[in-house]
Amino acid sequence: MRAFPIRCLALLSLGLLSHHPAMAASTPTFADAKASDPITLGLMQGTPPPADKQVNFANYLQFPNTRWAFSHQRELVPTANIARGQGAVSELPRAERSDLDGVQFTPLGGTQPMTWGQSLAANYTDGIVVLHRGKVVYERYFGALGAQGQHMAMSVTKSFVGTLAAMLVDEGRLNPAAEVASYVPELKDSGFGHATVRQVMDMTTGIHYSENYADPKAEIWEYARAGHVLPRPAGYNGAKTLYEFLQKVQAEGAHGDAFAYKTVNTDVLSWIIQRVTGQSIMANLQERIWSKLGAEQDAYMAVDESGTGFAGGGLNLSLRDMARFGEMLRLDGRFNGQQIVPAAVVADIRNGGDKPAFAKAGYTTLPGGSYRNMWWVLHNADGAYSARGIHGQAIYIDPKAEMVIARFASHPLAANANLDPTSLPAYEAVAKQLMASDAR
Amino acid sequence: MRAFPIRCLALLSLGLLSHHPAMAASTPTFADAKASDPITLGLMQGTPPPADKQVNFANYLQFPNTRWAFSHQRELVPTANIARGQGAVSELPRAERSDLDGVQFTPLGGTQPMTWGQSLAANYTDGIVVLHRGKVVYERYFGALGAQGQHMAMSVTKSFVGTLAAMLVDEGRLNPAAEVASYVPELKDSGFGHATVRQVMDMTTGIHYSENYADPKAEIWEYARAGHVLPRPAGYNGAKTLYEFLQKVQAEGAHGDAFAYKTVNTDVLSWIIQRVTGQSIMANLQERIWSKLGAEQDAYMAVDESGTGFAGGGLNLSLRDMARFGEMLRLDGRFNGQQIVPAAVVADIRNGGDKPAFAKAGYTTLPGGSYRNMWWVLHNADGAYSARGIHGQAIYIDPKAEMVIARFASHPLAANANLDPTSLPAYEAVAKQLMASDAR
Repeated sequence: MRAFPIRCLALLSLGLLSHHPAMAASTPTFADAKASDPITLGLMQGTPPPADKQVNFANYLQFPNTRWAFSHQRELVPTANIARGQGAVSELPRAERSDLDGVQFTPLGGTQPMTWGQSLAANYTDGIVVLHRGKVVYERYFGALGAQGQHMAMSVTKSFVGTLAAMLVDEGRLNPAAEVASYVPELKDSGFGHATVRQVMDMTTGIHYSENYADPKAEIWEYARAGHVLPRPAGYNGAKTLYEFLQKVQAEGAHGDAFAYKTVNTDVLSWIIQRVTGQSIMANLQERIWSKLGAEQDAYMAVDESGTGFAGGGLNLSLRDMARFGEMLRLDGRFNGQQIVPAAVVADIRNGGDKPAFAKAGYTTLPGGSYRNMWWVLHNADGAYSARGIHGQAIYIDPKAEMVIARFASHPLAANANLDPTSLPAYEAVAKQLMASDAR
Repeated sequence: MRAFPIRCLALLSLGLLSHHPAMAASTPTFADAKASDPITLGLMQGTPPPADKQVNFANYLQFPNTRWAFSHQRELVPTANIARGQGAVSELPRAERSDLDGVQFTPLGGTQPMTWGQSLAANYTDGIVVLHRGKVVYERYFGALGAQGQHMAMSVTKSFVGTLAAMLVDEGRLNPAAEVASYVPELKDSGFGHATVRQVMDMTTGIHYSENYADPKAEIWEYARAGHVLPRPAGYNGAKTLYEFLQKVQAEGAHGDAFAYKTVNTDVLSWIIQRVTGQSIMANLQERIWSKLGAEQDAYMAVDESGTGFAGGGLNLSLRDMARFGEMLRLDGRFNGQQIVPAAVVADIRNGGDKPAFAKAGYTTLPGGSYRNMWWVLHNADGAYSARGIHGQAIYIDPKAEMVIARFASHPLAANANLDPTSLPAYEAVAKQLMASDAR
């Protein structure tokens, strides 16, 4: 394989880039889902695995190693636990349906129909669950993932963090109109200093931060090495932690003008959350979400050398727990017998953000959309909103269809622009099928 | 602090050394348990922690950083999960006793009495639980550890691995008389090749493997770097995995003559277990132990760059789960409604190993003892046996007193020779107290 796409993938795998329009243009040929199945390939099989089948920190972001690594990040990097606690698991009742595999849709920009069942391999799905009215109507696992086990959520992490921030706003503990520096004085002289908390939450900050993978001097490379989710070259003398890096980010353009998806915003927001609460982002997720959801499994987060959780893309969790989080939001924040997220926060997410600002970013697969509290809002007929991570990680909540989809994937290409054509219309078709059977 | 003790500590912290007679001789002055409390010191407090309070991979084995790090290994190195599964927690009934803190004993080699309560600080205890007839009669946590959270078990790990091997012997799947090379051909030309499985299980192999911390060329340094639980210097070109190292170990002396505590034996045994079962050592622990114990929490294990679990010292688990494991053995392997370990295996451990071979090793705090299936057998009046890890990790099972003690600690000195004087007589005194109250 050529160096270019690999480098691109390695970068994107970190959740540091997403939806970059240029990504869709570069489409080298990769082994398909079946041919790149990590079990079939023998990745990390044997004691010890043969040298050419070992996935390690140096090579884990290279496809097809990603197909194993995305389900095993803790075996590759330091991580901190997010405990489910000692409470009972919130059971997800099952009402599996055999009709969904055959549901047809036409991929965006395509002419030939595809079935839901076919879309799973097309998207290199590692696991997918569909809830309808809270019941599991569909659940499948592939490759290196099973029901027990956590998968990298990539930038789906951001939506968890944005939700926490919105909860603090709702509680009056976080002022969205205040400047970042009022919470994190260390960022006073950075490009974030005069941005408001709201601008960070909705990613409309104006900062000099390049996510251009083709430029080896782009800030994103240093950021990835700072968080140590990428290996550092010999003699590396860049930032040693995420927050050391954030303090160096410079301003560029005005804040508030346009949506600009830049992962560093989420880590700034996480820093703010931690200052307001006096607790790590892991502890916040544990106390406010995990311990209340009736989660099946602990979750975990990649941490940098100062123990800071990588809020921009470091969460790993089980598929069903990700579905529970989505279902909780669908139910206006009430789940497992308690109000976990205030209904007003859910409404604020669902209502969406600044559409004109979003339009400036040019996401062709999300026309008319917006971004609010680190959630993608589709503004479609069903009022759907979504958490999205590169390589195909997603929570998709369709209020009208009373449907929640949680998906993990290890698509060789990072940008969701590559997955949306065979995902968004598939979700809509399944929603339609579920609503049609309601009507019968 | 001088370089010598730190280096010694760093090494010993890995579970690679233990009970080395020379260790007791070097007794530099360290801050006491209260003064080195990681919370009081502010280690890893704040977002991010101040630079001089950060514990990271480069400094985590230096006291007092160890006082935080031993409860947070996963935040410092790659680890693999050992899942408790979805079953109910096996409740440990409580019957706490206020009299134990005042129980007196005389430390080995001492003249002044000490109380049980005083011994906890003397040993830099991070957590301790005493079970009597299966009930929690005493439970305390200090420093960075709580009931929720895992602690490094150090060489207590070995006793879990030895138990697994003994189970396979009992099942007829592992032949203790067979040579190591018959299970692991890769070790044919190493010093282990012609050793029997039994000699590995009881650590009577004759191998050239120095654990002399004063010698920078000692094999132990390379082993620690091979497993990557110690940082590697620039230009490092030694073994990159545990098993790459094991294949280079040479023979020295005869097998079977004397007990010689060398961590590499456990990783050889783990390799054998994995070959026999076709599963990782983590999967073995999960299926055979964790999923059956009714464990409260998942456990985890440090892994090297090939994903191999560090069987010689890499297990991290919760204190109560460690107590459950001990209680299960005390009950002849039956716990949580099922036979988890065959009674014959427990009897084999309890009966102990080759006493003359053990005597040759010269453990002054364990006169008349033996070593069997990677357990230390005291052969005292109560028939006690113990799992022991450096810096004070221990499971102590006293069949006659129907008592199990589980302890985690972060003593600045590694060798248990430093902790035994204020531990072993303390355990015996508490056992006596519990038996006395039985009699009343």
